[in-house]
Amino acid sequence: MASESGKLWGGRFVGAVDPIMEKFNASIAYDRHLWEADVQGSKAYSRGLEKAGLLTKAEMEQILQGLDKVAEEWAQGTFKLNPSDEDIHTANERRLKELIGETAGKLHTGRSRNDQVVTDLRLWMRQTCSTLSTLLWELIRTMVDRAEAERDVLFPGYTHLQRAQPIRWSHWLLSGAIAGNPLGVDRELLRAELNFGAITLNSMDATSERDFVAEFLFWASLCMTHLSRMAEDLILYGTKEFSFVQLSDAYSTGSSLMPQKKNPDSLELIRSKAGRVFGRCAGLLMTLKGLPSTYNKDLQEDKEAVFEVSDTMSAVLQVATGVISTLQIHRENMAQALSPDMLATDLAYYLVRKGMPFRQAHEASGKAVFMAETKGVALNQLSLQELQTISPLFSGDVSRVWDYGHSVEQYGALGGTARSSVDWQIGQVRALLRAQQASTPLPPALK
Amino acid sequence: MASESGKLWGGRFVGAVDPIMEKFNASIAYDRHLWEADVQGSKAYSRGLEKAGLLTKAEMEQILQGLDKVAEEWAQGTFKLNPSDEDIHTANERRLKELIGETAGKLHTGRSRNDQVVTDLRLWMRQTCSTLSTLLWELIRTMVDRAEAERDVLFPGYTHLQRAQPIRWSHWLLSGAIAGNPLGVDRELLRAELNFGAITLNSMDATSERDFVAEFLFWASLCMTHLSRMAEDLILYGTKEFSFVQLSDAYSTGSSLMPQKKNPDSLELIRSKAGRVFGRCAGLLMTLKGLPSTYNKDLQEDKEAVFEVSDTMSAVLQVATGVISTLQIHRENMAQALSPDMLATDLAYYLVRKGMPFRQAHEASGKAVFMAETKGVALNQLSLQELQTISPLFSGDVSRVWDYGHSVEQYGALGGTARSSVDWQIGQVRALLRAQQASTPLPPALK
Amino acid sequence: MASESGKLWGGRFVGAVDPIMEKFNASIAYDRHLWEADVQGSKAYSRGLEKAGLLTKAEMEQILQGLDKVAEEWAQGTFKLNPSDEDIHTANERRLKELIGETAGKLHTGRSRNDQVVTDLRLWMRQTCSTLSTLLWELIRTMVDRAEAERDVLFPGYTHLQRAQPIRWSHWLLSGAIAGNPLGVDRELLRAELNFGAITLNSMDATSERDFVAEFLFWASLCMTHLSRMAEDLILYGTKEFSFVQLSDAYSTGSSLMPQKKNPDSLELIRSKAGRVFGRCAGLLMTLKGLPSTYNKDLQEDKEAVFEVSDTMSAVLQVATGVISTLQIHRENMAQALSPDMLATDLAYYLVRKGMPFRQAHEASGKAVFMAETKGVALNQLSLQELQTISPLFSGDVSRVWDYGHSVEQYGALGGTARSSVDWQIGQVRALLRAQQASTPLPPALK
Amino acid sequence: MASESGKLWGGRFVGAVDPIMEKFNASIAYDRHLWEADVQGSKAYSRGLEKAGLLTKAEMEQILQGLDKVAEEWAQGTFKLNPSDEDIHTANERRLKELIGETAGKLHTGRSRNDQVVTDLRLWMRQTCSTLSTLLWELIRTMVDRAEAERDVLFPGYTHLQRAQPIRWSHWLLSGAIAGNPLGVDRELLRAELNFGAITLNSMDATSERDFVAEFLFWASLCMTHLSRMAEDLILYGTKEFSFVQLSDAYSTGSSLMPQKKNPDSLELIRSKAGRVFGRCAGLLMTLKGLPSTYNKDLQEDKEAVFEVSDTMSAVLQVATGVISTLQIHRENMAQALSPDMLATDLAYYLVRKGMPFRQAHEASGKAVFMAETKGVALNQLSLQELQTISPLFSGDVSRVWDYGHSVEQYGALGGTARSSVDWQIGQVRALLRAQQASTPLPPALK
Repeated sequence: MASESGKLWGGRFVGAVDPIMEKFNASIAYDRHLWEADVQGSKAYSRGLEKAGLLTKAEMEQILQGLDKVAEEWAQGTFKLNPSDEDIHTANERRLKELIGETAGKLHTGRSRNDQVVTDLRLWMRQTCSTLSTLLWELIRTMVDRAEAERDVLFPGYTHLQRAQPIRWSHWLLSGAIAGNPLGVDRELLRAELNFGAITLNSMDATSERDFVAEFLFWASLCMTHLSRMAEDLILYGTKEFSFVQLSDAYSTGSSLMPQKKNPDSLELIRSKAGRVFGRCAGLLMTLKGLPSTYNKDLQEDKEAVFEVSDTMSAVLQVATGVISTLQIHRENMAQALSPDMLATDLAYYLVRKGMPFRQAHEASGKAVFMAETKGVALNQLSLQELQTISPLFSGDVSRVWDYGHSVEQYGALGGTARSSVDWQIGQVRALLRAQQASTPLPPALK
Repeated sequence: MASESGKLWGGRFVGAVDPIMEKFNASIAYDRHLWEADVQGSKAYSRGLEKAGLLTKAEMEQILQGLDKVAEEWAQGTFKLNPSDEDIHTANERRLKELIGETAGKLHTGRSRNDQVVTDLRLWMRQTCSTLSTLLWELIRTMVDRAEAERDVLFPGYTHLQRAQPIRWSHWLLSGAIAGNPLGVDRELLRAELNFGAITLNSMDATSERDFVAEFLFWASLCMTHLSRMAEDLILYGTKEFSFVQLSDAYSTGSSLMPQKKNPDSLELIRSKAGRVFGRCAGLLMTLKGLPSTYNKDLQEDKEAVFEVSDTMSAVLQVATGVISTLQIHRENMAQALSPDMLATDLAYYLVRKGMPFRQAHEASGKAVFMAETKGVALNQLSLQELQTISPLFSGDVSRVWDYGHSVEQYGALGGTARSSVDWQIGQVRALLRAQQASTPLPPALK
Repeated sequence: MASESGKLWGGRFVGAVDPIMEKFNASIAYDRHLWEADVQGSKAYSRGLEKAGLLTKAEMEQILQGLDKVAEEWAQGTFKLNPSDEDIHTANERRLKELIGETAGKLHTGRSRNDQVVTDLRLWMRQTCSTLSTLLWELIRTMVDRAEAERDVLFPGYTHLQRAQPIRWSHWLLSGAIAGNPLGVDRELLRAELNFGAITLNSMDATSERDFVAEFLFWASLCMTHLSRMAEDLILYGTKEFSFVQLSDAYSTGSSLMPQKKNPDSLELIRSKAGRVFGRCAGLLMTLKGLPSTYNKDLQEDKEAVFEVSDTMSAVLQVATGVISTLQIHRENMAQALSPDMLATDLAYYLVRKGMPFRQAHEASGKAVFMAETKGVALNQLSLQELQTISPLFSGDVSRVWDYGHSVEQYGALGGTARSSVDWQIGQVRALLRAQQASTPLPPALK
Repeated sequence: MASESGKLWGGRFVGAVDPIMEKFNASIAYDRHLWEADVQGSKAYSRGLEKAGLLTKAEMEQILQGLDKVAEEWAQGTFKLNPSDEDIHTANERRLKELIGETAGKLHTGRSRNDQVVTDLRLWMRQTCSTLSTLLWELIRTMVDRAEAERDVLFPGYTHLQRAQPIRWSHWLLSGAIAGNPLGVDRELLRAELNFGAITLNSMDATSERDFVAEFLFWASLCMTHLSRMAEDLILYGTKEFSFVQLSDAYSTGSSLMPQKKNPDSLELIRSKAGRVFGRCAGLLMTLKGLPSTYNKDLQEDKEAVFEVSDTMSAVLQVATGVISTLQIHRENMAQALSPDMLATDLAYYLVRKGMPFRQAHEASGKAVFMAETKGVALNQLSLQELQTISPLFSGDVSRVWDYGHSVEQYGALGGTARSSVDWQIGQVRALLRAQQASTPLPPALK
């Protein structure tokens, strides 16, 4: 009947297959990234078939050699895609059949495409996580190297972007190095999931859940959030107003209009990528929300997200390493930015050590700050007499408060900004780096 | 001093420019989409320079002809990118200089790259919005055409996925057509922003804000949310359990493992893209959050988002149109899914018309439903005597309630599911379609 | 059979209704905000029922008076909720029945709860949008008032947070005032949707779509993104390093530890709320994704999102207005932050006016900047002879370039930073403010 | 000067403190949840001060007793907040001072509010994670109990919502139980972070990063995504069309309009909460993006997010447990939904076992499906002769294929749907439950 023929409503297209649908459906444009994982997975699977008696030894050998040839073609750039190759899996299987004939048809006995896709992606991510981890450790190493070399440089610590207390420059560097840490944790998680030592507990869940993808995307989002904050700090520190650091020309660009400018494009791009990476994480979770269980084509969204995020992370980590390793610091400006009012907390502690409860000491120190502001002098230029109008506990030894080096040395508790504490932090991070290097590298995937 | 030379910390790279940074910074890989808009914008700008006396008429002519040549090369695929072409703007300017010599250097007098980028993107989006709008209207037209042809088909309306009341199939189709509507509104908004009839009020805000991008991405997200819901309905209606509709083969795929299956991949992909598109919107807003005013390189993230979303929307709208225009409906199954209990509300209304307050009538009808369930019969098989034990207001004319066609005809209020109301809706949407066609097409951009 | 009784699997709860489910399901804790809208909507609906002959005039009067009494109880805080009041709609109906008896049962004839909920929310949002709009215009008025009073203050304009060119402080203020603008546009959109002059075209779509909620949440997200950027600027301008502005004590807080600090908490909170507000928008879209059509309980998520965002926006807009109106600016610091290298673009323009193509002029000016840096002098301290080694076009009149006031006056194009342009911008925004005030206020809702 | 007094621009408010700012700034309305953690943290800190010689033993005792009294007042609901109590920390300290006098002022020597806030939140989350974990394990236990009792019920497995192959109902239940698993992993992560056995490495990072919050919110988002999918399945299975399951009345609600309906509100609410929870995660990451290092007031956004998500998760997990434990299954409907075409894959395997490569067997089985459809008979009603026209490998033993019980028993590989495999899965999950119970409970927090 006419109304059901599909012709009445004048769709642009009537025929066997809508070419736009074909393109919409096909994933070969991006899942070709998986060629190596796909060959690895199929080689492993054919060995499994042989053990199960579903392939003879000879058939298995034929398949393995065929797959090696397929891999060789990809590696040499001679693999030719057909227009009908919908995805990497059909492309490889089609080529295998051309190379070895009908035996190729036995390769996927009892294996659904969904299994194959998810296994390949897991294999690929194992490799990617390993690469990204190496890049992240390289960034951390660079930061800790600088932290060690420059541990005597003091500059203002900020909270609320207000100058707070003097800290070591190395203390800032190490806070960044530590912020990079999440990968360490998460890689373990992913590695545990991806090492195939454990099997998935439930076949429905195995093809349906994408926790390993979601967790990778979230790790990347959180890591980028940290890096966006580090970038923000360095952008600020590099302004004319702060002038604490200067970006190497290799990571800056000029203005097309204003000849005097040098812009921190590298840092701005790092900061901006936090949005893009998180957007992919948000997009995947939204796609997953409310999906019926097991495989639905919606899950195909996982791959482009993972590929793009992996590329972004790789570039960001390398550029961040380059930025940190070539960054110039302006020691004099850092030193000049320290001012006596940043020692107001030390002044309160001075009174605490003389027996005054902290809340009262805080108030007394606040009065001193106010008095200095009113008189238009620096906090350390108040006379002893003036201080004593605030509290009789002040005496001559108060002058020892006005020493930035002495101030930072008070914070010797682990994690603090004293030289000893910073050395300890350097030691801790170096220990992590050594542990990382010593850990058995990931086994050559499934070979 | 060594510690400031950038060499001590062994960054992978020491030299004039880090090649990874160069690639990280460059946008030519994706902003080449803007070639036409860039030429248009530069042609307009050179006319402005001539009016301002900054170019002679001869220089302007030289530049206009050079730009036409550049455009011709792009159109014919003969434009050759240099490795040093950072973006489409430098590429075009470099080529212009090769073609016409030093005069090219005058083209961007008083115009920053940031101006140029944002203007080009606005021009490109004007074209894109127009194209997407056409595709969306095509989808709406297809839906309203079907709605008209199939307005006598009844099937269950659902709320909470529970069968609620009989409705016309056309009523569902029109609810989808109307859901497509947002573009209409939003295009006006964008068009108002993009028609350049109005000028931006403030130069700082003009290069800094990306409201037109954010609003485009949000429009796309909201539109995709609607389409994801339509896709969900059709996926459900196409299950064996519902069997109301059948997807054309052109929009289905088979299973690699299970020979009997035909999967609604097209609809699943439409549903899934809501996540991807929204992810781009989320990503951009996160990138914008807390940025200092005016231009920051972070804003470069706008373009890939817009390009990807535009491509996605274009494919989704065309596939959705194809799906709707070739969808087969199973009238008998739709009819069989109607059951007397779906007329329980009508039974209550019957009592209301006899004078009973609605809340009591609702309760009385609920008792009838319970009585029928208890007796194991259909609601319309309760005898008059049985009904009268619930309310004496029931009389012989209650039998007229048990007619699905009569039931839907009660909903004649505008927006309802009666034939007259559905006809009115069709008329309203057709009027929108006509208004759309009659509207002056977008003027050839800036020529 | 045991395995189907629900007892075998030891759920915490077995009985008629799970109290946690009851609480999970109930919305009265937050939808009581809607009491006034609910009464208004029901009054209008009862008039409709009377016209349709489903209520007598006397019944309608009884209902109207009863509803007025219900409203009075809410207004006076004497309305008593029962534990069984699931939502505001059942609470009001239950109370109405207590007040006027059985006639109350006729009020919702032919009206589903879903209709009622969505109508009430639309009514409430009409009121809320009006209130927020007033607060936003108040902020804009404050900014334009300051812009007018302080239009002779110059300070550095930044791009990439690098000092770019001198601009007027008012130019920055107006860029913020204009960024507030989206509401203007969006309110029209919402108002069009909410004024009930138009009817919804399709009953399925009407209870199912939440575009008006999503668009409100997105408007709020975009508005907060702008405000987060304004807050970021002001936080930076308020640092010791910039010292351009000082927050009033009314909008700062001290540190519990460091007596000398004054933190810009108000601005940090404004910046942070962009995340919260956007999170609600993201959450709603995710909830909507892939929902079957018509009403599903999932849609209940709309209300808390709208209420929280409305409260947040209201607080943010009032605090932002307070911050701007009490902010102190440090004119001397602003002036001192201007430096001759910010006139490098002007130097290039000087050469352009002497006939040099802009790209060459830009290069020449860049050489001058480099020469000054190398010699360790300010750009305006290069001698004429030195400049002439770069280009023979330099002559004595180059000295006129070194005047910040003259520099900003060059940007007289509309939207620029010249006095005349800033005055024009002030005029434009004032015209918007007047238009806003003159516009007919929203009609008393549905009365 | 007038223009700097803040009076010219008519801010709504001029005075010492803007009351709206005070409210905007205050967190006491929600951070009172932290009262117990705050007391615990302060007790531990005062012990630390005593060890460091900053408190005498007597002072420490006085403080500890005072804090116990404060805790007692909170526990008994007698703690009275002052209007000036900005947050829980100042409230507790204020009250302590009232109780024990000036010694209270020594409690926070050397401890910033930021330290205190972040420590309290970590302590609170340790407790919350423990509670949520218990609720999640309760849900898992319920599912595994049902899985064990109902392991002989078969029903259709779906992919793409198309009937795929027969599976055990228990297989579905276990896929849900396993999907709940992420908490297990993540709790370890959080526990590692929160057990205070390890110290934070860097003081700047410690007050600045909110990884433990972000990871909690992401865990909750991912967990909710899984639960939204389980809810979607159950909503579908509960439709008239599927009729596989029936929700207990305790978790359903009726319609205000349609007497015959019973809506799965509980499941719809579970599905919807995925959006809300993820929205909080998205909001926090957006707030964190680009923040300068160390403490900024923006970080205050962490708490409401955590509190709301914790409440939501708690309700969702309990309702889900209730739903699963009281759900009725319709065995007959499940059995009737199985059809011979779901055994087409088995038919292909039959041929594989006779030596045909899988790809050919798949094609042959597809031909049989097509032949049956064309003839209008069920797949198992094709005669042997008819099958042999497709392949001569078919013989009499093909009749053994048409047995659903036999079909599921083929999937005996671990994770499959065979009885033995399902038993193994039950065993695995039970082992996890036992391990969970046996694990040392969280130590009484810091006492």
